[in-house]
Amino acid sequence: MGLINSSLARTLTNKNFFNTSIATSRSRKTLKIVQKLKIVDIVEQDINEAVKDADLVVIGIPVKAYEEVLKKIVNSLKPGSVITDVGSVKLNIIKMTDRLIPKNVFFVPGHPIAGTENSGPESGFDGLFDKGWCILTPNPKLNMHKVNLVKEMWELAGMRVDIMDPAHHDMVLAITSHIPHIIAYSIVGTVANLESALKKEVIKYAASGFKDFTRIAASDPTMWRDIMLLNKASIIKMLSIFKKDLASLEKAIKKEDADFMYKLFSKTRKIRKDIIK
Amino acid sequence: MGLINSSLARTLTNKNFFNTSIATSRSRKTLKIVQKLKIVDIVEQDINEAVKDADLVVIGIPVKAYEEVLKKIVNSLKPGSVITDVGSVKLNIIKMTDRLIPKNVFFVPGHPIAGTENSGPESGFDGLFDKGWCILTPNPKLNMHKVNLVKEMWELAGMRVDIMDPAHHDMVLAITSHIPHIIAYSIVGTVANLESALKKEVIKYAASGFKDFTRIAASDPTMWRDIMLLNKASIIKMLSIFKKDLASLEKAIKKEDADFMYKLFSKTRKIRKDIIK
Repeated sequence: MGLINSSLARTLTNKNFFNTSIATSRSRKTLKIVQKLKIVDIVEQDINEAVKDADLVVIGIPVKAYEEVLKKIVNSLKPGSVITDVGSVKLNIIKMTDRLIPKNVFFVPGHPIAGTENSGPESGFDGLFDKGWCILTPNPKLNMHKVNLVKEMWELAGMRVDIMDPAHHDMVLAITSHIPHIIAYSIVGTVANLESALKKEVIKYAASGFKDFTRIAASDPTMWRDIMLLNKASIIKMLSIFKKDLASLEKAIKKEDADFMYKLFSKTRKIRKDIIK
Repeated sequence: MGLINSSLARTLTNKNFFNTSIATSRSRKTLKIVQKLKIVDIVEQDINEAVKDADLVVIGIPVKAYEEVLKKIVNSLKPGSVITDVGSVKLNIIKMTDRLIPKNVFFVPGHPIAGTENSGPESGFDGLFDKGWCILTPNPKLNMHKVNLVKEMWELAGMRVDIMDPAHHDMVLAITSHIPHIIAYSIVGTVANLESALKKEVIKYAASGFKDFTRIAASDPTMWRDIMLLNKASIIKMLSIFKKDLASLEKAIKKEDADFMYKLFSKTRKIRKDIIK
């Protein structure tokens, strides 16, 4: 019940998607907040009790924690039920889930591309998913009715849904999300390590540029540590391309190659136009 | 008369800071837009006519263009008048300006830390400077009345004003602004060079992270090319520190050093809190 699942609970309530919604969490503090927020019908501390009658289970935890949680619940899952998730890495969690869940339970891996730098159930809100994209990466052999249940849920929540190959998802997301987070974490980390007087000035005069980076680098540490661990291959691959391009730009600055810079800085402006149109 | 000066004209109008405001530009198109916007009293195509009776001249052009413009106007400047600027690089433009302007004209270098990714007089707006910081880097021997004229202008425009050593300014700005722009330009450039199908997907699924980078990398190409050329020393120095830190993070991802990542990602979250408080 973090940012994503608490937003989903808020959004689906009153939309008649479910008869009963149940929230569970390892943390008692989180459950107390969820109870106060009144965004689900039932708050249940025992995870096996929470899942045992569920037709649909939505996992919203750091991707490295899936294995431990799935091992706990595999024997409580209802035959015919569907498990989905909201994690930003797909290939490795699919391998692991396929190994653990029973044959009569169906896993539809999902990734709603939405979020803010805030975490926890108190940070969620109705509207987070509006007009965003949700990518599902199910096994092509999976029963389409099971996939459609998850698709309908995200569409009801306001998203457009695409089906994608999990390895391809991990590569696209390495570029659009994981590498930018690595870069932002790294440069904000550079500032965190500056001597105190200079650090204070950087914080004081932070404008567009560094300030945007700090927002990205304020994202949940556990969630992002796990993404780095589980999408290592795609991240390392894309990072090596980025480093090569950065070295070219650095060389152009050193050589005062005004043409190289002007061309690059004009090309990137076009990408922005494509994104906001 | 780009984003900054057109915003300044809008903001100072009706505040009785000047008797008459005159705008000039190399570009006839820009002058036509300024005329239509009605944000100055007089639009003057001849730069020498524009500056000859001015008590205060505000230069708002790419930093590499200062030399050519100053050479044109030095003989038209009024004795006792003050020249200021809004450029993001100070040390090199001060050296050059000191060499060119007459002894009886006073240069007060300025840098209002404000802006958006948009450029041109039509992008300016009243309110751009509200509560931002403006850094002035005058020669310590300069007459304080001359410095105060520029200080009062920015305070009237809504900014808080600090005095700083120009070399120090260039280093702080390399961190808060120039390096983030280099990084953003570089990574958006990486995407611009991807093969067409993958590029389309990256644009389609761009979320927070890459999308923020595209906004930064949509900034004016000429302005940023010139900043890279004129703040080369500070930029190269800070870039080498950033590259070292990025290499450490990459190594941690490769080694799956979960602790290193968790510590870094928590430290950066604190910097964000300091900035937005």
